[in-house]
Amino acid sequence: MSRLVMKFGGTSVANIERIRNVARHVERERKAGNNIAVVVSAMSGKTNELVGWCEQASALYDRREYDAVVASGEQVTAGLLAIVLQDMGIPARSWQGWQIPIQTSDSHGSARIAHINAAAILEAFEARAEVAVVAGFQGIHQETGRIATLGRGGSDTSAVAIAAAIGADRCDIYTDVDGVYTTDPRIVPKARRLDRVAFEEMLEMASLGAKVLQVRSVELAMVHKVKTFVRSSFDDPRDPKAGTLICDEEDIVEQQVVTGIAFSRDEAQITLRQVADHPGVAAAIFIPLAEANINVDMIIQVASENSGVTDMTFTVSAADFERAKSILHKAQPQIGFTSLTGATDVVKISAIGVGMRSHAGVAALAFKALAEKGINIRAITTSEIKFSVLIEAAYTELAVRTLHSLYGLDKA
Amino acid sequence: MSRLVMKFGGTSVANIERIRNVARHVERERKAGNNIAVVVSAMSGKTNELVGWCEQASALYDRREYDAVVASGEQVTAGLLAIVLQDMGIPARSWQGWQIPIQTSDSHGSARIAHINAAAILEAFEARAEVAVVAGFQGIHQETGRIATLGRGGSDTSAVAIAAAIGADRCDIYTDVDGVYTTDPRIVPKARRLDRVAFEEMLEMASLGAKVLQVRSVELAMVHKVKTFVRSSFDDPRDPKAGTLICDEEDIVEQQVVTGIAFSRDEAQITLRQVADHPGVAAAIFIPLAEANINVDMIIQVASENSGVTDMTFTVSAADFERAKSILHKAQPQIGFTSLTGATDVVKISAIGVGMRSHAGVAALAFKALAEKGINIRAITTSEIKFSVLIEAAYTELAVRTLHSLYGLDKA
Repeated sequence: MSRLVMKFGGTSVANIERIRNVARHVERERKAGNNIAVVVSAMSGKTNELVGWCEQASALYDRREYDAVVASGEQVTAGLLAIVLQDMGIPARSWQGWQIPIQTSDSHGSARIAHINAAAILEAFEARAEVAVVAGFQGIHQETGRIATLGRGGSDTSAVAIAAAIGADRCDIYTDVDGVYTTDPRIVPKARRLDRVAFEEMLEMASLGAKVLQVRSVELAMVHKVKTFVRSSFDDPRDPKAGTLICDEEDIVEQQVVTGIAFSRDEAQITLRQVADHPGVAAAIFIPLAEANINVDMIIQVASENSGVTDMTFTVSAADFERAKSILHKAQPQIGFTSLTGATDVVKISAIGVGMRSHAGVAALAFKALAEKGINIRAITTSEIKFSVLIEAAYTELAVRTLHSLYGLDKA
Repeated sequence: MSRLVMKFGGTSVANIERIRNVARHVERERKAGNNIAVVVSAMSGKTNELVGWCEQASALYDRREYDAVVASGEQVTAGLLAIVLQDMGIPARSWQGWQIPIQTSDSHGSARIAHINAAAILEAFEARAEVAVVAGFQGIHQETGRIATLGRGGSDTSAVAIAAAIGADRCDIYTDVDGVYTTDPRIVPKARRLDRVAFEEMLEMASLGAKVLQVRSVELAMVHKVKTFVRSSFDDPRDPKAGTLICDEEDIVEQQVVTGIAFSRDEAQITLRQVADHPGVAAAIFIPLAEANINVDMIIQVASENSGVTDMTFTVSAADFERAKSILHKAQPQIGFTSLTGATDVVKISAIGVGMRSHAGVAALAFKALAEKGINIRAITTSEIKFSVLIEAAYTELAVRTLHSLYGLDKA
């Protein structure tokens, strides 16, 4: 019998009726001859409620206690789905992270999965043809025996990790959209669902703002070569539609140069004027930020020749903006800038495609097209399979539509 | 340092503000020099919500899954209280049942505590003067590794069991009333708070309808001689009032004959007419009920002399009424009754007091007083320290007030 992991997010398990619908999807796959592990999120709204209580309890809450509180949401869903499956005559039991166990690092609140012992689940498959219903988002730190959670969206990561651990043939991520699109259809009505996306592309898309999968789940899928299928949980369980398969590059026959356009509004721009242009000044700026766990993304340095000073512009996530400014002000004596300006009305637009590796000048086309629309580019970064531009937020829709058309992604 | 267990029920932890109030009670006791284990219930309403989902999921839910779902309520409160205590500068951590572990039997939904390993909590006391915040109502069945709950009100039992395991000097049960009363003050405004109640009396009161403590918690307190103090969580934490101490009989100086009047509306009466009066007929009636886990309480047999038949009247809990009738109808051929009648508009009124052991005729006074008020007694049971009468429910208040006055329990 083949093995399948099925993951359902919060909106798919929002109430008992929806959980019953999830069970019908499981029933279909079981009848098709699969041994199944189902990974579930908390019922929608529950995690926010639990997080809210922790924040009310203390602004500086102990992350170990936070984890013990918020992990309960997924435990509830897992138990309820097991009951519903049994009610339909399907043998099932729930598994909490510590029961399997799913061993994690001790970085509570954003723990990484270190190891999964799949023996108990495989034994339940072999001995009782039992569906394993696994509480997502959580594991246990082996040394302390305390519950650790994987960060928001962590149930995707749980699903892929379990798929790798049990050697699943496929990992199906059921969500409230029916797959991965060339861009956000709310912005570009001509956006198309992709039949297949390469792991590398999906990783960039997720990192650059596409919200369909947690970034770490895609990393894991890529490392362990877990074929991951994104599909809709609101399809008729008897007749589900197609979704998007995330797979190896070589499994994609007809590769586009650009596969998708992603964008992220979660950006903030910081500019330091008249920084002394000498070796070590970049370290003086970026080391204090790194020590505060603030990721710096795009960096531009504009030096006036022979002036001895330079302007430094870079981006951080909007959530880190205030903290970054305060750190830089404290470090002003060491850095020596004359002024610090910032902006949060910026957006990062990215084009992704493994085809860029073999095609030169892909980004240059974009710079020209955006200029023709009067869109000013504030910063640029590129890598082997993507490029990103930072622009004023007001131009988001125009820029996304322009690039979507430019690279031939509009619907036929 | 002395050791103290403090238990807080659902209304005492209903929101973060109330949890903060709980933390102030803990702070006071800690400053007084105690090492403290706090046992908490789920936030009020949460357990009902979780139970409701299980019932919606399946009328015949798997009790192991039910336990996994409902135990989450207490886990949330434990984490939140630990965060609040830390916020006040008090070292604290939460403990779920499986983390301690609290080992239980496998009778999921109404498990019994088999053993508690107190080593980790004691180590936290010694090494870090840390408050242990324990999720009530739950443990783990050691062989299966699955979560088991102790039944409604089970957090009282968790508290007393932990008090016994850590050798606590006292177990304080904080609740929404300020102690144990001579009877329900809503029915008898002259009811008095008792300063002290003997274990045996409290056990009878809890069994006979007083809702202040779970019956099993009192059994455990009696067996392990845990001094248990019932008090109000709504007192000013800086200046708490008195409550009721449940303690050994010999610690009560001035013992009343009757300590309290309890009543239970959760009763149903069944009468079988013209049962053949021969050996074995009682077994034919009561064994099928026992096999269905239906407890029979009061039993009266009225035989007409030399008629060869007898009428049997007995009571079961109202929840078991329909099931009991259906079982008896099925067993009619073996029992041989001519008719079965039942009533749920009945109430059991009980008077409790260890003083009854040394005073004769205590119950007879009651029969006379009730008869004078025109109250018909349908059944009577007595034991060493209590007697109960079954009467028509409409007379509940009148009967309770009559007995409360009769035995001198009215306020001075």
